[in-house]
Amino acid sequence: MDTQDKAWLLDNLRIFGGLSHPELAEEIASHLQVPLCKHTNSRFRNDNMYVQLLESVRGKDVVIIQSFSPPNVSDNIIELLMMMNAAASASARSIHAVIPYFSYARSDKKDEPRISIAGRLMADLIATAGATHVMTMTLHSPQVHGFFSVPTDHLTSRPAFVQHFRKQDLSNTVVVSPDIGHAKRATSLARDLGVGVAAGDKTRVSDTEVVLNTIIGDIAGRDVIVFDDEIATGGSTIAMVEALRQQGVRRITLACTHGVFSGNAIASLGARDDIAEIVTTNTVPVPEAKRLPNMTVLSVGSIFGQAIHCNLMGRSVGPLFAYWHEK
Amino acid sequence: MDTQDKAWLLDNLRIFGGLSHPELAEEIASHLQVPLCKHTNSRFRNDNMYVQLLESVRGKDVVIIQSFSPPNVSDNIIELLMMMNAAASASARSIHAVIPYFSYARSDKKDEPRISIAGRLMADLIATAGATHVMTMTLHSPQVHGFFSVPTDHLTSRPAFVQHFRKQDLSNTVVVSPDIGHAKRATSLARDLGVGVAAGDKTRVSDTEVVLNTIIGDIAGRDVIVFDDEIATGGSTIAMVEALRQQGVRRITLACTHGVFSGNAIASLGARDDIAEIVTTNTVPVPEAKRLPNMTVLSVGSIFGQAIHCNLMGRSVGPLFAYWHEK
Amino acid sequence: MDTQDKAWLLDNLRIFGGLSHPELAEEIASHLQVPLCKHTNSRFRNDNMYVQLLESVRGKDVVIIQSFSPPNVSDNIIELLMMMNAAASASARSIHAVIPYFSYARSDKKDEPRISIAGRLMADLIATAGATHVMTMTLHSPQVHGFFSVPTDHLTSRPAFVQHFRKQDLSNTVVVSPDIGHAKRATSLARDLGVGVAAGDKTRVSDTEVVLNTIIGDIAGRDVIVFDDEIATGGSTIAMVEALRQQGVRRITLACTHGVFSGNAIASLGARDDIAEIVTTNTVPVPEAKRLPNMTVLSVGSIFGQAIHCNLMGRSVGPLFAYWHEK
Amino acid sequence: MDTQDKAWLLDNLRIFGGLSHPELAEEIASHLQVPLCKHTNSRFRNDNMYVQLLESVRGKDVVIIQSFSPPNVSDNIIELLMMMNAAASASARSIHAVIPYFSYARSDKKDEPRISIAGRLMADLIATAGATHVMTMTLHSPQVHGFFSVPTDHLTSRPAFVQHFRKQDLSNTVVVSPDIGHAKRATSLARDLGVGVAAGDKTRVSDTEVVLNTIIGDIAGRDVIVFDDEIATGGSTIAMVEALRQQGVRRITLACTHGVFSGNAIASLGARDDIAEIVTTNTVPVPEAKRLPNMTVLSVGSIFGQAIHCNLMGRSVGPLFAYWHEK
Amino acid sequence: MDTQDKAWLLDNLRIFGGLSHPELAEEIASHLQVPLCKHTNSRFRNDNMYVQLLESVRGKDVVIIQSFSPPNVSDNIIELLMMMNAAASASARSIHAVIPYFSYARSDKKDEPRISIAGRLMADLIATAGATHVMTMTLHSPQVHGFFSVPTDHLTSRPAFVQHFRKQDLSNTVVVSPDIGHAKRATSLARDLGVGVAAGDKTRVSDTEVVLNTIIGDIAGRDVIVFDDEIATGGSTIAMVEALRQQGVRRITLACTHGVFSGNAIASLGARDDIAEIVTTNTVPVPEAKRLPNMTVLSVGSIFGQAIHCNLMGRSVGPLFAYWHEK
Amino acid sequence: MDTQDKAWLLDNLRIFGGLSHPELAEEIASHLQVPLCKHTNSRFRNDNMYVQLLESVRGKDVVIIQSFSPPNVSDNIIELLMMMNAAASASARSIHAVIPYFSYARSDKKDEPRISIAGRLMADLIATAGATHVMTMTLHSPQVHGFFSVPTDHLTSRPAFVQHFRKQDLSNTVVVSPDIGHAKRATSLARDLGVGVAAGDKTRVSDTEVVLNTIIGDIAGRDVIVFDDEIATGGSTIAMVEALRQQGVRRITLACTHGVFSGNAIASLGARDDIAEIVTTNTVPVPEAKRLPNMTVLSVGSIFGQAIHCNLMGRSVGPLFAYWHEK
Repeated sequence: MDTQDKAWLLDNLRIFGGLSHPELAEEIASHLQVPLCKHTNSRFRNDNMYVQLLESVRGKDVVIIQSFSPPNVSDNIIELLMMMNAAASASARSIHAVIPYFSYARSDKKDEPRISIAGRLMADLIATAGATHVMTMTLHSPQVHGFFSVPTDHLTSRPAFVQHFRKQDLSNTVVVSPDIGHAKRATSLARDLGVGVAAGDKTRVSDTEVVLNTIIGDIAGRDVIVFDDEIATGGSTIAMVEALRQQGVRRITLACTHGVFSGNAIASLGARDDIAEIVTTNTVPVPEAKRLPNMTVLSVGSIFGQAIHCNLMGRSVGPLFAYWHEK
Repeated sequence: MDTQDKAWLLDNLRIFGGLSHPELAEEIASHLQVPLCKHTNSRFRNDNMYVQLLESVRGKDVVIIQSFSPPNVSDNIIELLMMMNAAASASARSIHAVIPYFSYARSDKKDEPRISIAGRLMADLIATAGATHVMTMTLHSPQVHGFFSVPTDHLTSRPAFVQHFRKQDLSNTVVVSPDIGHAKRATSLARDLGVGVAAGDKTRVSDTEVVLNTIIGDIAGRDVIVFDDEIATGGSTIAMVEALRQQGVRRITLACTHGVFSGNAIASLGARDDIAEIVTTNTVPVPEAKRLPNMTVLSVGSIFGQAIHCNLMGRSVGPLFAYWHEK
Repeated sequence: MDTQDKAWLLDNLRIFGGLSHPELAEEIASHLQVPLCKHTNSRFRNDNMYVQLLESVRGKDVVIIQSFSPPNVSDNIIELLMMMNAAASASARSIHAVIPYFSYARSDKKDEPRISIAGRLMADLIATAGATHVMTMTLHSPQVHGFFSVPTDHLTSRPAFVQHFRKQDLSNTVVVSPDIGHAKRATSLARDLGVGVAAGDKTRVSDTEVVLNTIIGDIAGRDVIVFDDEIATGGSTIAMVEALRQQGVRRITLACTHGVFSGNAIASLGARDDIAEIVTTNTVPVPEAKRLPNMTVLSVGSIFGQAIHCNLMGRSVGPLFAYWHEK
Repeated sequence: MDTQDKAWLLDNLRIFGGLSHPELAEEIASHLQVPLCKHTNSRFRNDNMYVQLLESVRGKDVVIIQSFSPPNVSDNIIELLMMMNAAASASARSIHAVIPYFSYARSDKKDEPRISIAGRLMADLIATAGATHVMTMTLHSPQVHGFFSVPTDHLTSRPAFVQHFRKQDLSNTVVVSPDIGHAKRATSLARDLGVGVAAGDKTRVSDTEVVLNTIIGDIAGRDVIVFDDEIATGGSTIAMVEALRQQGVRRITLACTHGVFSGNAIASLGARDDIAEIVTTNTVPVPEAKRLPNMTVLSVGSIFGQAIHCNLMGRSVGPLFAYWHEK
Repeated sequence: MDTQDKAWLLDNLRIFGGLSHPELAEEIASHLQVPLCKHTNSRFRNDNMYVQLLESVRGKDVVIIQSFSPPNVSDNIIELLMMMNAAASASARSIHAVIPYFSYARSDKKDEPRISIAGRLMADLIATAGATHVMTMTLHSPQVHGFFSVPTDHLTSRPAFVQHFRKQDLSNTVVVSPDIGHAKRATSLARDLGVGVAAGDKTRVSDTEVVLNTIIGDIAGRDVIVFDDEIATGGSTIAMVEALRQQGVRRITLACTHGVFSGNAIASLGARDDIAEIVTTNTVPVPEAKRLPNMTVLSVGSIFGQAIHCNLMGRSVGPLFAYWHEK
Repeated sequence: MDTQDKAWLLDNLRIFGGLSHPELAEEIASHLQVPLCKHTNSRFRNDNMYVQLLESVRGKDVVIIQSFSPPNVSDNIIELLMMMNAAASASARSIHAVIPYFSYARSDKKDEPRISIAGRLMADLIATAGATHVMTMTLHSPQVHGFFSVPTDHLTSRPAFVQHFRKQDLSNTVVVSPDIGHAKRATSLARDLGVGVAAGDKTRVSDTEVVLNTIIGDIAGRDVIVFDDEIATGGSTIAMVEALRQQGVRRITLACTHGVFSGNAIASLGARDDIAEIVTTNTVPVPEAKRLPNMTVLSVGSIFGQAIHCNLMGRSVGPLFAYWHEK
């Protein structure tokens, strides 16, 4: 970063991190070469949250980093709303909600009567609380972008994966999408890596159960990278690993943007010895206890850092957008 | 309809049809046993539209039917907005925009920089002009439902198709989805008909070209119903027909909700002698000139009629919703 | 309730209870002689909430009961917002948020820089999610009423206390307000009971500590009812009891609208043998484990029931309002 | 323009032209010494519009030029809305809609029941789509200014006419308003030119017909400039010319701001040999085919250019406003 | 009014009158056969207004009558806003602002830089305070109708004048518009009375002065009715009377909708013996002291009464609208 | 003020004063070393206000000073709304409403049915008219801060009092709050002055009458400063003076932020010879006629001046806030 930009950011940017993910907030601040601002979050005796920003924000561009990651997603949401509201009421010039993992993107349609399209609701609450701009990464479906009423940047984590895998021998590699119905992201990664693509064909057999019928594409003897947007309990991932094994693949790598790893995901994944590597990012915090020996956690800190930098200084962030090669 | 409902609707409902699709408006009014209200639409000498509702709407529930169908989609949109605005300004109690074909649903994500997510924009314009409720059918992606700020009913045309195909011998039939990535609607129809399902596997080879790689599922010697949400120029449909033919299917039926049939679609489809039947609905008007001898146009008039009836009288419309069996 | 009202409510009212307080929801429904409607609340594997209303609400007046009570206040808020949003999107005619304990009313001013006036924020979120009307009880300060953008009824629990205490011998009784700065509620109760009033005089000695200097009024040898809006950890309540004891009161009764009893409140209060009775209401749920032998929990179910009844049928709810005698 | 301004505009201004009037957009950009930015406008096969801005607008002041001129006024409106929406969603700092001819200004009152005051509706749609500021010229009635919710500059084309006519011999000239009921604009022009004024006296004899009774003022033997806001089909203009001829005027010049020239206007006007000159502006594009030998088309490019320049740099645009001398 | 309507209105309508015009409020209530509801309006010692509605409005249709008439227009506006806000907050079902004289309609354009188009501002304030519907009469310019964001009925007083003048001998009568630029209303009255029309031709000679040049039309020896929307100080009216006198008219009648009669209007008009009759309405209160012997004050009570009646019961009010014959 | 700030303010700030308090506006402008901008305020003959800003505000930060002080509070409010609306419509960059005395803060709760919480209503009107920021001082209750939808700075006048009293001998002084229920402000002043505190204990004996029971704290022989937010008619102040006298205080000083002095306040206060000093500020104008010989009027001009300065230049105004030591 050149000196002029650095001075401008120091003068104008105030960056805060909610309780969900202090490490990522620290990384982003560090990328931007500004100190991470502090805030108080305590609880009243009736469980109400109390939030205070500890740095003046009057006339400043305020960035707040908060992942909608478990545990306590509701607390994370309320904290973000209160921090933004506090900044607005203290006369911030602009308020940028940085939500690396916008979990409610999965509630994106009304496939049952009388449910909430909660992705839209959350987007509306964020606007009500004072956000003037949103940044997020790898939404479950790209249409969720249209739920936001304020300008929103939908970033991709793919550059981090490309950079990581390019260091490996890819001569025998194929990228596999777990679900042919959502194969766009895998295809884009494959293209960037210059390798082929394959996909699982799933069928939903009941309201709660999905079975993997087959894997389309030539994978026997190949090194595969299974690429998904999110691994939660890991159930369907394990099923995919088994199917790949049966079809005689050589080396299995699992890759996902949002490493939620809830329930007994870590136990199940750790119990297998046929997964060469698990690659994820830190959009969701991955505590030490969850870091399996074969796990690599890529940082998205610099992607968000660059996006914030460009944004505040009025430069194009196009190259960082999810759509860049995903068409 | 019982006598009490009929009297209530006569007293409270005022139903208008925009210029896009007078036939469907007439059908819906007829289903509801109320007269279709008239309106004036003329042009000033500077091409501005002039719209006047010719029936008092004060304190009434106003329904306006308008399809966003070609030609002149922009005119259709502006006319709907002006009609709703006229109704609002004339003290209508509620304003229901019935949009059988919401074409801008296809602009549902930002896959290029600096484009408009026009589906969201249109939804916002509709609310600005005074709609208090929207009814639509078979949106390109179900997430578009979340773009609307007013309560919206997303209906399905499937009941009309089920009723139609149940009259045929289905003992050898398979429903085929043209794209395994959007196979939900085909799967639902197959389930309702009690038959199997297959799907095409497409690959986008460039920004403008998609090729059909293969068809997954056992279709040789079967009667197939290709089921899609929309047929426009028919290019990919013809490609699918050819692929099916090569795989030795017995009888080919094409079915789609929105029969746009633009460009030389009718010429191409009419030139083939291996398409047993083309089944579509009248969400988009299908003029006589486009009605090929092997084409069946199912009416969605009674589906919308029932939905309006239930809505105005405060009864559940659940059974008419798109999600009913599409999970 | 007369037959006509009963039939009207059965036809038009759909009442739901959030997870915070099912018992109160049941009581209110029972008062209104309608069944309590069911809803689903489950969690996705990423901790996101999933909410579905299990009764059609199209064209109906929907009432949702949710207390902002611990534990998990944030979850209770998000659940209420999602339930209202689901009702709005399913075309409810009106949506009434019944919040017996609106805990964030305590965040009602900006006594530090860069904090959120969270009571206002919550009121705004409630409107965004679709509430058309709010009902609440005994807000910490009456000004919080002005934070709401939708019509709001601020009810009082005092009738329940009056009814309770009138059954006792009040010939020697004085009502004591713990803080002369908020003595209005105690004065109103005293007036309704036809007894005298006294008040504690507190001084804030530091940001976190308040000391009770003295008790103003003649209380020696009297039976006292200490009346507050809320007991949380009970610390200041115990201090008040000790001060009263020193001044030679005869019988001590503690009374509060919102019995939060957090931290070791129950242990502290249960350890004393000089508290004749603790009277609270069920605006906050009081589980069996917290019900000390000397505790009486009055139900506010019929107060809310009456208020809902009057509201929906367009009758005055004046007599139920907090301001009725509190001037 | 001084160097500092020029550099500032190059850095901050991004100016686009809709399809209605690329020439004027080019002129305005040229006045401002910045390149005109490009955008894509194509049609999907279902007639939906697709719009993409081809220049980054993040943090920039975006100006979009679009005239609501025939043909295809609806398309022009939708294109403007989509371009503004695209700019807003791409984080433009401000969005200025420049609408040289806001045709719907003529729908400015409710002179029939159940019509839309479409001028107000269009103003609301423009705000919904993201405009932060509007610039327009010579609205049919000055009250239409009050329809806009965002700050709006109502400019006058009069300076261009003054500059043009001052080059002529005005010693024998009178400005004539076609309708004494809207004589303000003619009076202002006359004052600026230092000449006298006269006016036609019209009577509406039926809903569709207006007759010119007489011309008030001394015009025999004079050179007259008939000055109106708009010439559309030219019918009433021809009637005025005939009346003037009968009253023995010497030389007839027609002048109007918005040269719509629809229907057979050009044929009728071209067929007469007693019109010395027709002077109009390019708020509406005047293609070569319509440019009669005696027609002069004045450019409003520099007026809009100056207004944009002043606006973006926070300088008064007062001298460019319609009201300047029109009182 | 039939019995059923009467019972319905008694049950559902609550009608209040602001301090500006209690007589008209009483008349309107009387027409509707409902009691006029009472409210308190007092002042705090710091000049703040205190307003309380003294009738429950929960679930009712509330009508508030307030004229923006002098003296103390600002107080009248604030009182109306507070009364509407009180009704909204007390859960009224609908709030109808009846503003017989909307004086700020005269601030309808921006003919000087940096002024407020106050007509639009007032319309926005009225919506903010809770109006769901507005009724007004004879706006200075019909475009002001488009300033309102809520449905608005623009009524005409003409029926009252027609009824009045039809009782007179009209065989020799001509209606005169004081200004040919606003001759529409006079023309409509003339048509309804079956008589001819004439008009004054004014010229603005400076920013503050207007002179009457001549009167167009044949008026010598005729009985004239000068018809205007408003008489304020009466200066230009007196000038018109003198001009008419010079042209040898027989009998002069002055008629106007809004009889403001400010300044020394009454003294000037009363001093002349050549004005046969002054006819006005009670949109603005005309106190006894202003009622000259030759003055007739027509009541608009029944026009507003009918409009409210039709509105609340969902019937067309078309025949009462200003546009009815004014085209 | 340094040269750079001064130049920036000259370039960017345009400060106007409404009619309520031109002296304070002049003081504030003077503190900021910028000229006070002029505006026109005249009345039309129908009592409507006409407002014009006489300085270009395009792209500027506009500050408007208006106190809601008697007489004619309604006029002061309407003038402020019109000035802000004029600034917004003239493309001001930001609009700061500076309201030193926001009188409607006293209407802050609903202690009677069907009243308006007028403090909230006024806050909403201010936002509707275009304010982007509000500055005010010593609101009657701190919760009123939460009524505003735009960022609001709630300043304290205490620094002016501290500066004033520190010049006096405070060795024997006690600060007295007239009402122990609102003792916070007195406590803060006492702390800043390093002296003790006492408080009156009032009881409301009827809806209109309050009696002072006693004064809590040791005051005999002391010099007392009675500190309140507002003195209006002075009735309760006189009662307090008498009570103090009875308890044998030595020297009595009255101090209040808002010196409304309405009714016969000045006569009553002037008639007493036992009030050593009356100290107030100029949030409300104190004309010469009201300035008793023992009265000191402190200027809040520099407090507002500093706050505006900090605000516009994006610096913290924390030290000027009401909450600074009032907890």
